[in-house]
Amino acid sequence: MAKHKNISARLREARIKNDLTVDELFSGIKAGNSKELGQAITLVESNKEEDGAIASELIEKCLPLSGNSIRIGISGVPGVGKSSFIESFGSHLINQGKTVAVLAIDPSSEKSQGSILGDKTRMNNLSQNKNAFIRPSPTSGQLGGVAQKTRESILLCEAAGYDVILIETVGVGQSEISARSMVDFFLLLMLAGAGDELQGIKRGIMEIADSLVITKADGENIGSAKVAAANYKNAMHLLPANKNGWVPRILTCSSNEGIGLDVIWDMIVSFQNDMKINQYFDRNRQDQSVYWMHENIKSELFNNFYNSPEVDKKLSQMETMVRSEKLTPTAAARKILDELQRPKG
Amino acid sequence: MAKHKNISARLREARIKNDLTVDELFSGIKAGNSKELGQAITLVESNKEEDGAIASELIEKCLPLSGNSIRIGISGVPGVGKSSFIESFGSHLINQGKTVAVLAIDPSSEKSQGSILGDKTRMNNLSQNKNAFIRPSPTSGQLGGVAQKTRESILLCEAAGYDVILIETVGVGQSEISARSMVDFFLLLMLAGAGDELQGIKRGIMEIADSLVITKADGENIGSAKVAAANYKNAMHLLPANKNGWVPRILTCSSNEGIGLDVIWDMIVSFQNDMKINQYFDRNRQDQSVYWMHENIKSELFNNFYNSPEVDKKLSQMETMVRSEKLTPTAAARKILDELQRPKG
Repeated sequence: MAKHKNISARLREARIKNDLTVDELFSGIKAGNSKELGQAITLVESNKEEDGAIASELIEKCLPLSGNSIRIGISGVPGVGKSSFIESFGSHLINQGKTVAVLAIDPSSEKSQGSILGDKTRMNNLSQNKNAFIRPSPTSGQLGGVAQKTRESILLCEAAGYDVILIETVGVGQSEISARSMVDFFLLLMLAGAGDELQGIKRGIMEIADSLVITKADGENIGSAKVAAANYKNAMHLLPANKNGWVPRILTCSSNEGIGLDVIWDMIVSFQNDMKINQYFDRNRQDQSVYWMHENIKSELFNNFYNSPEVDKKLSQMETMVRSEKLTPTAAARKILDELQRPKG
Repeated sequence: MAKHKNISARLREARIKNDLTVDELFSGIKAGNSKELGQAITLVESNKEEDGAIASELIEKCLPLSGNSIRIGISGVPGVGKSSFIESFGSHLINQGKTVAVLAIDPSSEKSQGSILGDKTRMNNLSQNKNAFIRPSPTSGQLGGVAQKTRESILLCEAAGYDVILIETVGVGQSEISARSMVDFFLLLMLAGAGDELQGIKRGIMEIADSLVITKADGENIGSAKVAAANYKNAMHLLPANKNGWVPRILTCSSNEGIGLDVIWDMIVSFQNDMKINQYFDRNRQDQSVYWMHENIKSELFNNFYNSPEVDKKLSQMETMVRSEKLTPTAAARKILDELQRPKG
């Protein structure tokens, strides 16, 4: 049990969302109750300062109970069938006696007001199963920190006892790199025959993928899926081996017909075994924690700097200069930092 | 002419890359010489401190000559045909008497060593045309700031007299938001019939797109392209109007057959006219400059904080604590900032 010397009684006893205290939320999570888990994630996702304090306390409490799942990142371009895959792969795992939580990293939710991922209605069977927990991505626009919140939600799901955490991401870029930094295994879904440019992304994406899975390998698509898999396998030979010794595997599957899901799960289990033997599994999670420490430092640096009336005042002066083209953005930034940020010593 | 009181004689006279001084580079750019332009962009992309100082000076010099192009962001999922579109759209513009520069924002270049975009070999005709300048995205891994460097490269291209700047990006997410923050017009290429999930991204992406263009509308694809265009048009009605009064347009084109390119260009010209009349054009560029001032502040905040032996020492202590799970990443970050960052007053 972790010690929490600094928990203020005020916080502990505060009646929060839906009249549950931190202790009540924690008990609910520990009992595997999805209602309390959902409420706790809402706290984590909140941008209100008071919610943040409660969320931190809750996460500290949950930490000793976390870490016992396998965390799997699932990505791929729009149209590749991520929802269908998660629906059928999740159901497959539940049939094997596992419990499954689905979370999402959705970079677009920072800009738009709406969620584009994790929509429960797209995962009908899974969302109705008592052994599954599906969390739609946050619906309110959050400036930064979306990935960080997903990472903290993983810990809560683990404390609630989920065996497998699926983290869904969209697109190619920052959200994949964020996801990579919080999962044990990164699975990239791909379409057969989606053009030359798709081939072009191999080099970048293969560095972070532990497996490529060609989706929709059913009916008349089976042939092209096999050709694509063979091509990717050939391309793989040109790449350096992963530092953990794992050679990324190329598989095919059909979400609609449930083909290939068992092979994918066997692969992940054998990955987990290999990584535990060569001690990369724990080392990777430690590296990830260090990465997230730095991400935390960065976001706090922003907040600390911007939360000052002195900075506010100077910023609006500089804005005027930039708007009237008297200063470049770079020069204005340098000026404001020279005056306000330089420490005394 | 801008005054540059603080230019050190040392910098101005320093013999830099290929024996060219800042003044010689500037003269070459002003004369529209692509060799000097390319060298200047290399300086902008460099992470060396001394290159950065020279690049800043050069950008300040170029600033009064910049701003006279139309800046167009071009995005879309892998496989949509971005390269082919840029090749044929760029050639179309050159046939109209324009000069065209192509730049790229490639988030994957931060992680991988290789560039996935802006490959000259993919734009054969355009790259051989004297009225085009094609800049492959940086090939060396750069930690952060890729987008910022692209933005500065735009200014250099404008100083060199290019009429149209095409900014290519990949994927959905941060790179699009970065691109949006440096262009006047954002064009999203889309494929017909690429699945339900593609429809799902509309809401997020339409907020930042000024036009959706369905590509590959030729041969037997014409029918499905038209259907897709009609569907997107219907979906548009559900969205709120853009604050600039522009209603995003849905078009189709064929890069292979050169169909629809004139309509796309006409649309962009009419957008530019509308936005100049309602004064949104300049205001938008001003807003973007302010945005980039903040981005500059953020990256400088990092650099200033991390470039300290005191921070280094504390960081490695905290790393040990985080690795041994004695502290969560969040708690470690809070601790290090409480001790080292809090200002005296």
